[in-house]
Amino acid sequence: MIDVFAKESKNINNKDVNNINIRANAPNPFIKIIQDKYELKTKLKDIKYKIGVYSAKGGVGKTTISINLAYSLAQKGLKVGLLDADIDCPNITIFLGIEDSISNEYPLKPIVYKDVKVISTAMLVDDLKKPIIWRGPMIAKMITDFLKNTEWGNLDYLIIDLPPGTSDAPLTIMQLLDLSGFIIVTTPQKVSSINSIRSGLMARRLNMPIIGVIENFSKEKLNENTKNVADKLSTEVLGAVKNADKFADMTDKGIIQVLNDDEIKKTFDSIVNKIENYIKNK
Amino acid sequence: MIDVFAKESKNINNKDVNNINIRANAPNPFIKIIQDKYELKTKLKDIKYKIGVYSAKGGVGKTTISINLAYSLAQKGLKVGLLDADIDCPNITIFLGIEDSISNEYPLKPIVYKDVKVISTAMLVDDLKKPIIWRGPMIAKMITDFLKNTEWGNLDYLIIDLPPGTSDAPLTIMQLLDLSGFIIVTTPQKVSSINSIRSGLMARRLNMPIIGVIENFSKEKLNENTKNVADKLSTEVLGAVKNADKFADMTDKGIIQVLNDDEIKKTFDSIVNKIENYIKNK
Repeated sequence: MIDVFAKESKNINNKDVNNINIRANAPNPFIKIIQDKYELKTKLKDIKYKIGVYSAKGGVGKTTISINLAYSLAQKGLKVGLLDADIDCPNITIFLGIEDSISNEYPLKPIVYKDVKVISTAMLVDDLKKPIIWRGPMIAKMITDFLKNTEWGNLDYLIIDLPPGTSDAPLTIMQLLDLSGFIIVTTPQKVSSINSIRSGLMARRLNMPIIGVIENFSKEKLNENTKNVADKLSTEVLGAVKNADKFADMTDKGIIQVLNDDEIKKTFDSIVNKIENYIKNK
Repeated sequence: MIDVFAKESKNINNKDVNNINIRANAPNPFIKIIQDKYELKTKLKDIKYKIGVYSAKGGVGKTTISINLAYSLAQKGLKVGLLDADIDCPNITIFLGIEDSISNEYPLKPIVYKDVKVISTAMLVDDLKKPIIWRGPMIAKMITDFLKNTEWGNLDYLIIDLPPGTSDAPLTIMQLLDLSGFIIVTTPQKVSSINSIRSGLMARRLNMPIIGVIENFSKEKLNENTKNVADKLSTEVLGAVKNADKFADMTDKGIIQVLNDDEIKKTFDSIVNKIENYIKNK
């Protein structure tokens, strides 16, 4: 079923809009995804590149990597947005130290923080500590509404911090958005590398390109497990982020690493150059 | 809606079986959950205590904590089961170093590994690296089937390693199983403590008792954030697990910490004593 979705919805483009009506006999959710996808394509047409940061396993550092990629790109003078797509467990505002931000306009306006436009469902709730409890179909609907009703304006890059797992939430985003590519986050631990392969295979099954792999919590040299992930996914290792303790400590204080630490900035500048090369040569 | 489920389904017991029919006019999913819950209560009647290990945030160590709790209890001569309830992203067999285990009987028989009965959806797939991609309703159905069709036999304790998030998967388990209580896993990081409060509030909203909080990746002394989590949830800190690097290294090698390291064993023995005291005084 999913393979069909991926194949069919991948091929849609502006001139396919008429086909949507012709397919009125197709199963309803399928039509719905194609319609949503088309509508989103129009709404987000002023965003040049959309990049998903993903790992099926939680706690590998998707959010901090997303933040540092976004701010590295912004430091180069590019227009950048940062979307916290973890709808039920949003954490970006905590990491940025702006957990009291509220977005109360509709359609939603991202909050501009240090030159990056940021949006998160955390900005829509009155108390961050209250859990957001939703069933799967509600999550898919919420993500779709959230994507449709955020006004990004012109952007060079939109960095999307995906939720963990291989089910509803990442699946919906992969099906809806025409991503320029995925970045898979992994760590030196064996369990993380197995999950990173799962993540990459899921992206591939949905016909999404993989830009490369970033190793987080790195030790002195790149781990063999990480090389194995890149090999298995026929992609490259974009970089390794060291100094886990310093990194975590800065996160806890709401300090954006690439704006405050030259060594970390150098690591991310190199990663961002590789991403830009990938995008240009695509 | 969820509050109603929790309140109604909490009160069900053996003599309520007739009420199920009387409620035939109630919305369908509600009837279904009560029926499933009753059926599970009967199926799992030979399990004395069911304990959920939970955190809304991934990567805080739910799985390693679950494993070490299970093996600490087993070392005391108790009959213990370990359920990997992360249906779409199962990791317990990797952590135990038994990732090639296959369970091919039906109803499912847990695999007995070093005196603990273990079951995971990882035992039902031919290749662990392939992603399991399901929509929310499928996950809820899969969890229900999985719980109903596993033959545990007599157990003193069933330790349940819950998936992250606050949506379908943990929600289904909280609604279906009559848990003796929850253990919330947290880390010294601020973002983890906020998510732990979310987790505890979700458990409480579903009328589930919280046994206590375990701090993982601990430094020398207990973090103020962790004390704050316990205060906010009106519960106690059960213990702090230090030596994160040694711990991770043993996990990567499939070594169960409490069976091989006296210091870690001491930490978990103390935690397990507190859990047993809680259960006895309930």
